[in-house]
Amino acid sequence: MPSYTAPTKDQLFVLHDVLNVTEMDIPGYADLDRDFTAAIFGEAGKLASEVLTPLNVVGDKEGCTWDNGVVRTPTGFKDAYDQIHEGGWPGIDMPEAYGGQGMPHLMNTVCGEMFCAANQAFTMYHGLTHGAASAIVAHGTDGQKETYLPNMISGAWSGTMNLTEPHCGTDLGMMRTKADPQGDGTYKISGQKIFISAGEHDMADNIIHLVLAKIPGGPDGIKGVSLFIVPKFHVKEDGTLGARNGVSCGKIEEKMGIHGNATCVMNYDEATGYLLGEEHKGMRAMFTMMNEARLGVGMQGIGQAEVAYQNAVTYANDRLQGRDITGAKNPDGAADPIIVHPDVRRALMDQKSFAEGARAFAFWVATLLDRSVAGDQDADGLLSLLTPVVKGFLTDEGFDMTVKASQLYGGHGYIEEWGMSQFTRDARIAMIYEGANGVQALDLVGRKLAQDGGKHVMAFFDLVKTFCKDNAEVDGMEDFLGPLKKASKDLQAAGMYFMQNGMKNPNHALAGSNDFMHMFGHVCLGYMWAQMAKASLAALADGTPDPEFHENKLHTGRFYMARRLPATGMHLARIESGADTVMALKAANF
Amino acid sequence: MPSYTAPTKDQLFVLHDVLNVTEMDIPGYADLDRDFTAAIFGEAGKLASEVLTPLNVVGDKEGCTWDNGVVRTPTGFKDAYDQIHEGGWPGIDMPEAYGGQGMPHLMNTVCGEMFCAANQAFTMYHGLTHGAASAIVAHGTDGQKETYLPNMISGAWSGTMNLTEPHCGTDLGMMRTKADPQGDGTYKISGQKIFISAGEHDMADNIIHLVLAKIPGGPDGIKGVSLFIVPKFHVKEDGTLGARNGVSCGKIEEKMGIHGNATCVMNYDEATGYLLGEEHKGMRAMFTMMNEARLGVGMQGIGQAEVAYQNAVTYANDRLQGRDITGAKNPDGAADPIIVHPDVRRALMDQKSFAEGARAFAFWVATLLDRSVAGDQDADGLLSLLTPVVKGFLTDEGFDMTVKASQLYGGHGYIEEWGMSQFTRDARIAMIYEGANGVQALDLVGRKLAQDGGKHVMAFFDLVKTFCKDNAEVDGMEDFLGPLKKASKDLQAAGMYFMQNGMKNPNHALAGSNDFMHMFGHVCLGYMWAQMAKASLAALADGTPDPEFHENKLHTGRFYMARRLPATGMHLARIESGADTVMALKAANF
Repeated sequence: MPSYTAPTKDQLFVLHDVLNVTEMDIPGYADLDRDFTAAIFGEAGKLASEVLTPLNVVGDKEGCTWDNGVVRTPTGFKDAYDQIHEGGWPGIDMPEAYGGQGMPHLMNTVCGEMFCAANQAFTMYHGLTHGAASAIVAHGTDGQKETYLPNMISGAWSGTMNLTEPHCGTDLGMMRTKADPQGDGTYKISGQKIFISAGEHDMADNIIHLVLAKIPGGPDGIKGVSLFIVPKFHVKEDGTLGARNGVSCGKIEEKMGIHGNATCVMNYDEATGYLLGEEHKGMRAMFTMMNEARLGVGMQGIGQAEVAYQNAVTYANDRLQGRDITGAKNPDGAADPIIVHPDVRRALMDQKSFAEGARAFAFWVATLLDRSVAGDQDADGLLSLLTPVVKGFLTDEGFDMTVKASQLYGGHGYIEEWGMSQFTRDARIAMIYEGANGVQALDLVGRKLAQDGGKHVMAFFDLVKTFCKDNAEVDGMEDFLGPLKKASKDLQAAGMYFMQNGMKNPNHALAGSNDFMHMFGHVCLGYMWAQMAKASLAALADGTPDPEFHENKLHTGRFYMARRLPATGMHLARIESGADTVMALKAANF
Repeated sequence: MPSYTAPTKDQLFVLHDVLNVTEMDIPGYADLDRDFTAAIFGEAGKLASEVLTPLNVVGDKEGCTWDNGVVRTPTGFKDAYDQIHEGGWPGIDMPEAYGGQGMPHLMNTVCGEMFCAANQAFTMYHGLTHGAASAIVAHGTDGQKETYLPNMISGAWSGTMNLTEPHCGTDLGMMRTKADPQGDGTYKISGQKIFISAGEHDMADNIIHLVLAKIPGGPDGIKGVSLFIVPKFHVKEDGTLGARNGVSCGKIEEKMGIHGNATCVMNYDEATGYLLGEEHKGMRAMFTMMNEARLGVGMQGIGQAEVAYQNAVTYANDRLQGRDITGAKNPDGAADPIIVHPDVRRALMDQKSFAEGARAFAFWVATLLDRSVAGDQDADGLLSLLTPVVKGFLTDEGFDMTVKASQLYGGHGYIEEWGMSQFTRDARIAMIYEGANGVQALDLVGRKLAQDGGKHVMAFFDLVKTFCKDNAEVDGMEDFLGPLKKASKDLQAAGMYFMQNGMKNPNHALAGSNDFMHMFGHVCLGYMWAQMAKASLAALADGTPDPEFHENKLHTGRFYMARRLPATGMHLARIESGADTVMALKAANF
């Protein structure tokens, strides 16, 4: 069975040696000294390794069961759910006024990495609750906050997000679910929602559904969509639970993975709903949660890559097969461990350099989220630019990395008993939900690039340029700055191509959107690796007591710069070939 | 439920317009006129679509069951097995003397594509039989051929290949299964073999296991391995079946995919075995089947990519979501079909251009197999060079293509009900078995490149060079020859890098083996696309009655050249960065 060790040392390195979070001018960050964060992450890591990891395989094997509307979660999930909530983890970055711990979102992001790595299907239950609670924090009335938040933050109640319907996912303007106003401030919600993660289960006393629906007579399309709170059980004046509301789970889906999470068809039959935010402004309310939710899905990509990598390392050190071509490393054994073979190393370095680079990138983006919430408009713009990269690139790559990890197991990687297949099957969903990665690429190229006159992408390029300039003379940085400048130049050239050709024909830009998202991701990881290199070079120059850690960091970073960053050249060539070959065929001729 | 339509028109195009097989100087090819091949492929395609395709989901859902050594296949498999064999399909390229149809291997390759696409798990049963029968054809005594081949070729009996043991897969020299000579020409085989596909099942009257084992006192390691025939039921003098032999199935594995195929742990307990070929020359006997078997696995990659693509096209034409950015294409509908979106097209063109290019490549390699069997040493050398590319590149890419196909389904791609997840889960195994793709890359760079003084890779480059030279003046070829020359130059530069640096340190070559295999694959597909373009340009110039087919071929080829071939530059950069960043970390520091 796979194991998981929280990468606490690496997380602390990113926070304290690279990002220097304590010195950041962000509310609450001054409190995040190394002892404090180390204590928190240590506890979270323990929960992840000891409680959630053993349940990962259980969840996959047993799955959830549906019986006449009742959904049961796998053995042990309820106990773990209670432990997570007793520890206060779901409320780590929630307002203290409602029982949360009021820490920065960054802390939730770091802990989220560990929980996702240990058990993605399980972690989704409180992930969804977190998203729903955030929406109420941002858009709820004081009464709604008092009614729902304390129990959601404590974990007594869970939450969901209901967007998709059978005929519409990306294009929510086609939505059919209706909300009939009752004249008393309430609405009757009717319709069917599908793919509702954690839509029904047996771990919480109540489930607070956030549901998108259309109020009859409102504007057509996406502009006529409103957001509603629909509790599974009515909440009485005194806060106790009343009768069932008109919402039920019609079935749960059989899926490729995340079997431990109930993916529900939810039927709303004149269920009582309460408007959250303004009428017809439902999408806007949803969008304020989007950056947070998409960062959360990006963390799933990192988490699955990290846990799969850790187990691949164990196997590569244990499995004896063949000999080191430069001379036996285990001469007394029947063969050498396969980690001696260059192509095994290449695959492990792909994974390691991704996971560490991606971690730094995501934590940096989490600091932008905290800045944005604190009202920093520039940070908000940069966050909104980078969000599709975090979500799309990190989950595409995260999935690929699980495949590379299981590949090292040979046939054992394909056998469910070894647990490696689950990482791939679970990681696959992160490429799809919360906006499929093609939609992320479209969002990036079609909206975010040109947002505010292209100000945010310019700001990003300035950050990279300034960093390169400021560190040009630092000894040892040459392995990093050259490749970063080259990759950043490729990315700028792609943006230029879009500007010059997308005006004439937007297809020239959109046909390159997926490549652009990937090259942007590589530049971001290259930028983070350069920053990590700087931190490690400084630590070594300062006579760090742990030189090996920093030397390995430099080795791993050099691998990324030499072996992964050249992908930008390929993506640029594909982008610059334009839309003609992409669009040439008639639809009927595919 | 997914459907499958055999790509007969495209297969005939490759055989007759591109490769001109009828004019090839290969035994049996003169008979392969278009009417004949069209009739055969039409029948195979019908079987694939109508019989095997509906059983694909059944096999995935039901899987095989094991009960005290007895293995039952999913509902309908036995009927389909009988139909396949009544049609004579498993014997299509087997000797007429033993009931086969004596056609070239090329015909088996083309039919194999269709059967694999329709139902990979099912097709493996006769794929394994074919491999075992081929080994007996190549190495059996006349008596062994008469005893086993007629029933294996008719399908009354099936066959297996037993190589892997729990502690050794790639490194078979560590094998523990023993073969004790009994003095009467027979051996007692004892040991455990794992991952034995089709090792036990209920569709054939007997199962003929080919088993690698060591005769005590023989040479150490791989040089002391011999190959044995071990029938499940003893075969009496008169050809009827006798008592059970000492071989049994200890369990079947739960796997990520190919649930319809029984992957068995096989226990040999003093089972009677008959030497096939010479003592201690078992690996050599196995290796003569390797090219055929690896081409067969490559066909699985193409097959899964093709069937996943076909269903993605259907969905992309059906699913209404969003609007064409250049103007609505379905103004009366609620939205446009998603095939209007450039990134959806990009993903479909990736798949289409791969499947068609890969098909041409594999069929060409099948002609090399036929030449090789007919005694052509040069063809054999080229075949042996290209075999790891066929196996490794086509299965890596085939898997990726199934992911791209299911991605277009959004959430529906993750739900088992829609059948897209199965293509990915099934395609995954082809990257692993018959030599994991890392081992293919090692075989390519570590053995095949330098084989016979590098003669075969030089021959390949000459083919490409000559083609480019001969067609330099052909109008319309400029879109193809430029990119092909560039990619081929990249590949040569990588080979040169290996030669110059691998001498000093073989790790410099092996750290680039995976990249080299992929760039080689792209060059091969680029070469095939250039040949297809030439054929289509000629057809158009000759006033073909089907100009649209050929125009689409050119469009698709231009996409491959513009959008996929640039990958060679990235692979070259990675290779030329050498082994230093790959090998820098101590094993303990991963």
